[in-house]
Amino acid sequence: MIAIAYLGPHGTYSELAAETYARWHNTANYQLRPFRSITRAIQATVDHDADVCVVPVENSIGGSVAETLDTLWQASNLQVQQALILPIHHALVSTAQVLSDIRVVYSHPQALAQCQNWLAQSLPEAQLTAINSTTEGLKYLPEQPTAATISSLRAAQLHSLPVMAHPINDWPDNCTRFWVLSPQTATQGSHTSIAFGLPTNTPGALLKPLQLFATQNINMSRIESRPTKRTLGEYLFFVEIEASLASPQTQAALQLLDSCTEKLKCFGSYDLIQAEACKRASTVA
Amino acid sequence: MIAIAYLGPHGTYSELAAETYARWHNTANYQLRPFRSITRAIQATVDHDADVCVVPVENSIGGSVAETLDTLWQASNLQVQQALILPIHHALVSTAQVLSDIRVVYSHPQALAQCQNWLAQSLPEAQLTAINSTTEGLKYLPEQPTAATISSLRAAQLHSLPVMAHPINDWPDNCTRFWVLSPQTATQGSHTSIAFGLPTNTPGALLKPLQLFATQNINMSRIESRPTKRTLGEYLFFVEIEASLASPQTQAALQLLDSCTEKLKCFGSYDLIQAEACKRASTVA
Repeated sequence: MIAIAYLGPHGTYSELAAETYARWHNTANYQLRPFRSITRAIQATVDHDADVCVVPVENSIGGSVAETLDTLWQASNLQVQQALILPIHHALVSTAQVLSDIRVVYSHPQALAQCQNWLAQSLPEAQLTAINSTTEGLKYLPEQPTAATISSLRAAQLHSLPVMAHPINDWPDNCTRFWVLSPQTATQGSHTSIAFGLPTNTPGALLKPLQLFATQNINMSRIESRPTKRTLGEYLFFVEIEASLASPQTQAALQLLDSCTEKLKCFGSYDLIQAEACKRASTVA
Repeated sequence: MIAIAYLGPHGTYSELAAETYARWHNTANYQLRPFRSITRAIQATVDHDADVCVVPVENSIGGSVAETLDTLWQASNLQVQQALILPIHHALVSTAQVLSDIRVVYSHPQALAQCQNWLAQSLPEAQLTAINSTTEGLKYLPEQPTAATISSLRAAQLHSLPVMAHPINDWPDNCTRFWVLSPQTATQGSHTSIAFGLPTNTPGALLKPLQLFATQNINMSRIESRPTKRTLGEYLFFVEIEASLASPQTQAALQLLDSCTEKLKCFGSYDLIQAEACKRASTVA
């Protein structure tokens, strides 16, 4: 039996990712454990209250999920066991008879952002209200025929609630990347993620780490800066490379990287499972 | 008379930044124009309904303000006239008699994030509810003695509401950087901001632009990636350099930059006004 922690409640996209992970591993023997925040799901895995957690790291519209990156950097020694890329198709769920009856739309801030053009055109007068997840607002709908939520089709079905429009996301190729994390060491896989700080006040300080990868002919598939929180203008960099931690090239780059960065953290190597609809994703930098 | 657009309502940190800008320019002859979102404040300036807008771009805890960067890239030809860095000190505002009476805390998601440790320790049972601004929740307080908001001291004073704790932000050096934007061309200043896309699937594609700045001995004070929204794994890069657009070094770098980037956009040159409390901010990359 494996216990999988994720951002709940029942019906979220994170739950769908958790189930995809279990199915991929061909295990029927798993327990889903929803938590109220990403941080709590990660902490449960650090504390061995769950075997793995499945958390969102990046969306193709909203960008990085800051809570995931910050929590991983600060608190945990978890490693990435797998990356999952899943399509996100939002539905407008409501018990209203017609769109013009809707006065308020509840959803997670990222989901509201991903549908902002549709909302501006179809519900220009509705008040948009941010809540903790895409499914939390579903409970208000049976009592409030002037309310709607932005949720997945699956969540609407689970709660037997009517879908008024689908899909309503502004960009059709809306995909989210999830990480499966556990305390197990992960050294083999097509991709490796690391993070580091830099010595301050040096022109070109970021250049050196990037040069090390280019010299080893290692492609970088992602770079993201996050504030160190000490002072404005100090950053951490989260980098994903297209190489296994076990490869001699990566080992050579990481050894040199240690001398030109401050506090280097490695989150391990992993393979990518990518849904068909998200296959256009490619390398940029 | 200059009309200044910003994220309202009355009492927000953006309003404080708008007033700081007016004071700095020694003008008593200004009109504050609050908008419901950052995007609307920017659009009003594009449409000449306001002369300038003052918008947050980065916080030392929460990081980039995605809405500002995305709107600037997509829609507008505004230039940065000035950068303002102001301290952010949050207060817990409530009509409750004691902390233990508080059941719900309203605020903007960034403010909730900036006080999360204080909230976990002092109000572990309270429900945290995200709303559109730090001041919108103040109207609920007179009627709800079990509710609180996280707002500025100034907002509490404006609404004649009691402050129960201050400051409650987890990191004392919490600062936010604002940009003052207008359609006026801006070529002189200590800093310059640009943004660009990159040709895909080339190892080291990001390396070339960074090398161009290092070669000209230009320091980079900020780099931020944002999704292109076309497909997961494609990014735009927002870069701030410590040089004026008018300098020969910047001109040389930008000319070469054009040949190794896709769609290069320049947001102009500007000086930095920095509050004393934020002066530790420094250059990293």
